[in-house]
Parts: sequence; structure tokens; C-alpha cells
Amino acid sequence: MSSTVAKALSLLNYFSESEPEIGLSELARRSGVDKATVHRMLAVMCDHGLLEKRGDARLYRLGAGVLRLARVRETAFPVSSVFQHSLDTLSAEIGETAHGSLIAGRALATIGVSESNRGSRVSLVAGEILPMHSTASGMVVLAFSRPEFVDRALGEPLVAKTSRTVTDPNIIRARLQEVRLTGYAEADQTNEDDVYGIAMPVFDTDGTPAGAIAVAMPAHRMTNELRRHTISALFAEADKLNFGIGGRPPAEFRAAAARFSPT
Amino acid sequence: MSSTVAKALSLLNYFSESEPEIGLSELARRSGVDKATVHRMLAVMCDHGLLEKRGDARLYRLGAGVLRLARVRETAFPVSSVFQHSLDTLSAEIGETAHGSLIAGRALATIGVSESNRGSRVSLVAGEILPMHSTASGMVVLAFSRPEFVDRALGEPLVAKTSRTVTDPNIIRARLQEVRLTGYAEADQTNEDDVYGIAMPVFDTDGTPAGAIAVAMPAHRMTNELRRHTISALFAEADKLNFGIGGRPPAEFRAAAARFSPT
Repeated sequence: MSSTVAKALSLLNYFSESEPEIGLSELARRSGVDKATVHRMLAVMCDHGLLEKRGDARLYRLGAGVLRLARVRETAFPVSSVFQHSLDTLSAEIGETAHGSLIAGRALATIGVSESNRGSRVSLVAGEILPMHSTASGMVVLAFSRPEFVDRALGEPLVAKTSRTVTDPNIIRARLQEVRLTGYAEADQTNEDDVYGIAMPVFDTDGTPAGAIAVAMPAHRMTNELRRHTISALFAEADKLNFGIGGRPPAEFRAAAARFSPT
Repeated sequence: MSSTVAKALSLLNYFSESEPEIGLSELARRSGVDKATVHRMLAVMCDHGLLEKRGDARLYRLGAGVLRLARVRETAFPVSSVFQHSLDTLSAEIGETAHGSLIAGRALATIGVSESNRGSRVSLVAGEILPMHSTASGMVVLAFSRPEFVDRALGEPLVAKTSRTVTDPNIIRARLQEVRLTGYAEADQTNEDDVYGIAMPVFDTDGTPAGAIAVAMPAHRMTNELRRHTISALFAEADKLNFGIGGRPPAEFRAAAARFSPT
């Protein structure tokens, strides 16, 4: 039973900004489920507004139902808008692209971006799913997550996104220890060439991570001064953001923040 | 198979702005599915980020995954933002609340609202599902929809929302004929006491309705002059909106628009 629902819902993961419309055969191929079954699953999801098929087109896309669900959630729990304010502050202060992500089930989803207005900047796609092991945001989320969550994330195949990506779970676990002590993570071209990211976790009411805020810049622009300025700004914004969303940083994170000296 | 997926997805419909968090027992009671099965369905939906359970709370709410899906859809097909612009124009011009809705599967979901700034005004909830038979928006959507869509909508139990709601499918069908000729629908307190709504359809690329735009005002403020002004403004905005979203109004609607005389 559950596996059928899981298979159907997994189909939603294939839709992204770079691939907003996908056909039946392609969805069957990627999910490894036979075409007839995928077709029935898609029909049910269209019926419930999660997907839609426009006109005579043979392609499926996300339906207006997802807009409704997002409105309901955002009206009741305005997290996106609170994040956006922090991201705008961060990108204005640092002059680089800031982005925010939230844990959505097993994934970490980008839910807000504020791009710097410099010609050379890091561009992010809204709605993108961030790998846990190769991004600074993923690493701060893992560092403060429950062991089951970490085990599951590191138990999946870890893709080498660049030549610098660490894919050995033992080395990643050692790094997570370090991130717990510092309160932030850095990703020096481990997810994308020439992109340097620094991230900080934001928390839920129960002290587990809700997501992360991060600043991403072209790696060649990184200096010691910029690095400390960015970490300092992230600590300040994470504090405000936790307050705004009612998040409670655990003692470990508060200790890390207290240890940080901006000079 | 499909019915399990359908049951699971139906659980999402219970979440609304007025009820953003719901417990397991309540979801089981409303869906008529046993608690153990609902629990498994909820676990799968949490796993995929459509729902989430915060901290030690026993309540479920919509997950951050819906924010991701909405971003992906809106970035690829920016319909919400185009609607919002039209709604803001309408409410500024008429001085009453304007709202927009999109067909999401079998339902009609409010995806945008622009409230008038008058002390006495109609308030709408973002994310609300509009009944087809008792709202002006529902009636314009049905009037231009394929027969199967109308049969299914009118085949469901039709709730008398006020003492003025028409619940007889035959009378509703006769009214739909009239709406096809005029191009707009009016709901004089048929969905809510003292609320008068006027709506117009917007179309998809294939000429079927994508949704509706509407103006809603306190019924006691309605005058013949305001009525004609509203309809005229709706025709103008529907035209711009169809252009903006690439919608193609069918010949019947274009004929209705040509017949309308604003004086």
C-alpha cells in the first residue's frame, strides 16, 4: 500500500525548473514503474490537482493544486516570507547571493533566493533540491539532525558533484562533528566548481533543524575577511530568523554562536 | 492501487487556512479510512515533504515540499503573479475585493486575493476551495467546461450554503446556458449571506476554462451602475489575463464579450 503511494509521490520529484513538463514514457523510464501503472498514478494526481496536462499536449506539469497547498501553508505558517526578508538582508549586506532551504521529508528544498546584483554571481534555482553531503546547507542540517536522519541521508548513493566532493560517509561524519562545534559549514567547490558556500542551520520548535540559510559566492572572490564577515552576518540573521519562525536552537548551537568571535 | 493513492491525496484537502493542523484520529474519522492505514499514508506523505509533524506535537500540517512544488510551477508557468496583477487592478478600479481561482483537478482553488481597503469588504481566504454550484466563479467555469466535467461536479452532493443556493442540477444547467450567452455569472448571496459576486472565466491554451476572476462585494452596496462597471472591468481584465497566460477564449465567449455594451 504505502509503497504505491510512495511511488506515485516520487514522480513529483522529477519536476524542476529545468524540467517543468515531462511525458508519460519518460516518467515510466525514470521511475522504473511500468507505463500502465504510471499512467494510472498520473491520472489520480491530475484528479487531485497536483499535476495537470494542458490541452492536447502529451506532457504533464505541476498542477494549480500545489499553488493552493503552498498558500494554505504559508498563510498559516509564514516561513517563506520570513526567510525572504533575512535573505534580502544578507545579500544586501554581503553583496553576494543568499539562499534559504527547508527540510521537506528526506530532501532539502530551496525555498528562497536573493541574488546579489553583481554581474558575476551565483545563481540558484527556486525549488531546487540540494544534496546533503556536497552543500554547506546540507551539512549544517545533517550536523544537528537526529542520527536516523543522518544514517538515511548518508546511506543513499552519494554523488561526486565535483572533483572535490567528499563521498566517504566516514569522512563526512567527521566533518559533521566539526560543524556541530563551529555552528556553520563551508562548501569550497564541493557542489559546483567555483562556488563557495557558507551555511548556518535554522531550527524548529523542538530544536531539530528546520532548514538552513546560506551565502554563495564565486570561489575566487573568497577572502579571509569576507569569510568572517559572512559568518558573522549569518549568525546575526540565523538568530533573527529563529526568533521569527519560533525556532529553538539547541544548546550545542548556542554554544557555537557564543564561541564565535568576529574579529 | 489508484484508490489508495487517491485516498492518501484526499487527506490533503482537509488542510485549510482555518484548519492548518490536524491530528491522526480526526483525519481517520473524516476520510472514513481506518487509523492504521491513515497513519501509514501520513508517514509516506511526511517522507515526501507534502506533510510534516512538528516536534512532539501530534498534529500534522502541510510540509515544506508544497512550497518547493509551488515555486517550481510558478517559476516555469508564472500564473499566480499574472493573476495578482489583474486582481490588484480590479480591486483598485472597483473599490471592492477581487479574487482569482484556478481549476485544480476537480476543485476550484482560490490562488489570489486583492482586498479592497474599505472598512466593510468581503474577505477571502487564500487557498480556499470554492464550491462550483454556489459561487459566480464556479458557475463561469462550469458554463464553459466539457460536459464530463459538469456532470461530475453536479453529480456530487450540492450543499445549500445559504437559503438562496440553488441545489437542483436541472436549474443549475439552465443557468449555465445563460452564463454561456452573457460570458459572466452573478452570485447574489448564493454562497454567503450579504455577499454578491460577479465572475468571468479565463481560459487555457485549448479553450477550456483555466479558472476565473471575480469581484465580491457586500450585497447591500450593489447598484445597477456598480454592476455594469464591474462587468465591464472584468471583460477588460479577462482579456489582458488571457493574453498574459496564453489562454484562448472560445468563440462563444468572444461572442458574449462582443455583445456586452457597457452603457
